[in-house]
Amino acid sequence: MDWRVSAARTYGTPLYAYDADLLTDRLRILSGLFGDRFGISYAIKANPNLAVLRVIRPWLDTFDASSHAEVERAVAAGMDPAHVTFSGPAKRHEEIARAMAMGLGELVLEHADEARQASAIAQRLGRVQDVLVRINPMRVPRGFGASMAATPSQFGIDEEDIAAELPGIAALPGLRLIGFHIYSGTNCRDPNAIAENFAIFADIFRRAQAITGIRPTRLVFGSGFGLNYLPGEAPLDHEALPALVNPVIDALRAEPAFRDARCNLELGRWLVGPAGWLLTGVVSAKQSRGAAVRTCDAGFNNHLAAASMMGTVIPRNWVFENVTNPDGPVGRYTLTGPLCTSIDRLAHGIDLPEVRPGDILAIPNSGAYGLTASPTRFISHPEPREVLRQGGQLADVSESALNRWQGEAPDV
Amino acid sequence: MDWRVSAARTYGTPLYAYDADLLTDRLRILSGLFGDRFGISYAIKANPNLAVLRVIRPWLDTFDASSHAEVERAVAAGMDPAHVTFSGPAKRHEEIARAMAMGLGELVLEHADEARQASAIAQRLGRVQDVLVRINPMRVPRGFGASMAATPSQFGIDEEDIAAELPGIAALPGLRLIGFHIYSGTNCRDPNAIAENFAIFADIFRRAQAITGIRPTRLVFGSGFGLNYLPGEAPLDHEALPALVNPVIDALRAEPAFRDARCNLELGRWLVGPAGWLLTGVVSAKQSRGAAVRTCDAGFNNHLAAASMMGTVIPRNWVFENVTNPDGPVGRYTLTGPLCTSIDRLAHGIDLPEVRPGDILAIPNSGAYGLTASPTRFISHPEPREVLRQGGQLADVSESALNRWQGEAPDV
Repeated sequence: MDWRVSAARTYGTPLYAYDADLLTDRLRILSGLFGDRFGISYAIKANPNLAVLRVIRPWLDTFDASSHAEVERAVAAGMDPAHVTFSGPAKRHEEIARAMAMGLGELVLEHADEARQASAIAQRLGRVQDVLVRINPMRVPRGFGASMAATPSQFGIDEEDIAAELPGIAALPGLRLIGFHIYSGTNCRDPNAIAENFAIFADIFRRAQAITGIRPTRLVFGSGFGLNYLPGEAPLDHEALPALVNPVIDALRAEPAFRDARCNLELGRWLVGPAGWLLTGVVSAKQSRGAAVRTCDAGFNNHLAAASMMGTVIPRNWVFENVTNPDGPVGRYTLTGPLCTSIDRLAHGIDLPEVRPGDILAIPNSGAYGLTASPTRFISHPEPREVLRQGGQLADVSESALNRWQGEAPDV
Repeated sequence: MDWRVSAARTYGTPLYAYDADLLTDRLRILSGLFGDRFGISYAIKANPNLAVLRVIRPWLDTFDASSHAEVERAVAAGMDPAHVTFSGPAKRHEEIARAMAMGLGELVLEHADEARQASAIAQRLGRVQDVLVRINPMRVPRGFGASMAATPSQFGIDEEDIAAELPGIAALPGLRLIGFHIYSGTNCRDPNAIAENFAIFADIFRRAQAITGIRPTRLVFGSGFGLNYLPGEAPLDHEALPALVNPVIDALRAEPAFRDARCNLELGRWLVGPAGWLLTGVVSAKQSRGAAVRTCDAGFNNHLAAASMMGTVIPRNWVFENVTNPDGPVGRYTLTGPLCTSIDRLAHGIDLPEVRPGDILAIPNSGAYGLTASPTRFISHPEPREVLRQGGQLADVSESALNRWQGEAPDV
């Protein structure tokens, strides 16, 4: 039996199911892909589950945290705070202070005001904080999803302002500028676009180095490696990347100023997304105005992205699998969630093997931006559990028990 | 000082602030608006905070729950389960059984399969369950937001199928069909459209009565009373409603079959929305490519709807107030949240009194579909607290303390 089915039968639905072995496979692939050119920085926001973080930690140079609680999660997962980076466009004073007091490795600065604030905090704590400056490029190649470049942004210093801004930051007494950080686009499946983007990064890093005169020891390449969420999309051909990317990195590292630069790939989605599924049970079947409607026990409360509500302009069906009836005759269905609102629609006119009440549907590529990116408290349905499969064993790795029903159910 | 400012200073931001007196005013207005024609049914999903439910409860005929945990909330707020209705398109077997075992007042049936299932459960529990059948109309007037009519739907029995479906449901041995329920559109600010919709409901109720031959004791009119979320929108002129709506109800009630029909208005948004604000602190100011960007400590993690991510096709700025600098010179701003994603934008090109770091911005109309409709766990920022103002006193009515930072902060 498909392990996802037995997981759903054991732990109930909705259920987030993660496969640690598959995750480890992807970590191994990525670690070897570019030789020693890149370390890996995992963006905790993609999936902050502690059990998942513990699987990932041994493969990393750094965890990237985007809130103070994520810094705490990195440490709870066994990471030395010196190997944590902290980025984010609205870090509060107290967050910066708490992170520095814990011994944060690298603070990623988003603008000059934040740099001055961080310098003052570091001085009061009697330390000098290693920092990176995030730079916001003018240009991002076609092929990326949400793009942060070329428009006004809360992220980083605009590329065209670095000559004016960087020297002042580099001179702040509480900070040690050790390098730069760029993340300008997400979810790209085109190796050429990724390589072209990295070449843009390298060029900006060169100019930032020339402006500041530092010898960077850290450069962060926000990867934007994408996933094939929609039917018919090809996955990113990651094996095509080294031939395109390695020359960019080798040329940069050959320059004396960059000889000591440790380059990190920052990513989350590509690593953990394919290692997770949302499993949802089919509650009921009804016919409505020519459509075969199937209501499910998970809706946008449990997977905002799969319901096309996370930055998607035109709703499109994700891939679904009927894991309890994979060989049934194919029909066309409207899949809806349990919420009392007409916008709670998972798929419209999707072709699937016959979907019957009691069936379990799986949504692949749900390991990233799934549970914690969703409004699980909406309408107080029980929070999905999270299970992790490792070496053939399943473990309940849930961290929250919101809205679990209390007491024995009547036996009917 | 504006009480919202002192609330934010006392409890920190982001903060959901509710005004019980304003909420009570709206309950009083609604209770008197139509004479004794309507009871009030509050849709818990709009705001399930227990302290809010306790303010609302004395004014109600029923709480409308859309999940079993909401049934439990209604009871925790002091409501007799006999005055709770339970609706929802994907009620699980266990939810129905638990609710019936608690003594649920009215079960709202969405389709014939659910009716048969509910009848069997009731029989095994040795009771006869009062039920309403939800009907899904063919037509909804212009002027409503999300509309559930005229398309395939997970909600209710299609109007055109009631002749085929209702007799079988009425004959089920475990159920007592006591009336009907329609909710076909949300967030309407046009009194004429609301009255026209109620006339459509009345006509459908007449046909459903004729088909089943019952003398309904309960008819639920899903109100769809709307709010003016966007700048320049006029509020619903509720005082115009009685002249338009009362004749519809009086004509229906004059018919012998409907003499015992208690009509309920089911709503949530209109009651509780204007009684709540999300207060967010401004963390930083930066200039980026001609735009004055202000980062805030609340983003779509705390208010999905205000970030145009809850069923909105074209993002539009909600109303914002600068409550700490209401008389400052007006400027134009881009307001972003704290999340490490470029889609975390609260407003684009919005004109506000000068917005400075440390200012507090208020988002009105946030009492409904705010905190619990938002992915508060995304990126692990501290969950906003909820405070309730009543008789000039503020109380912390928070129910969750997700991601609160642990231990003392360094004093810097």
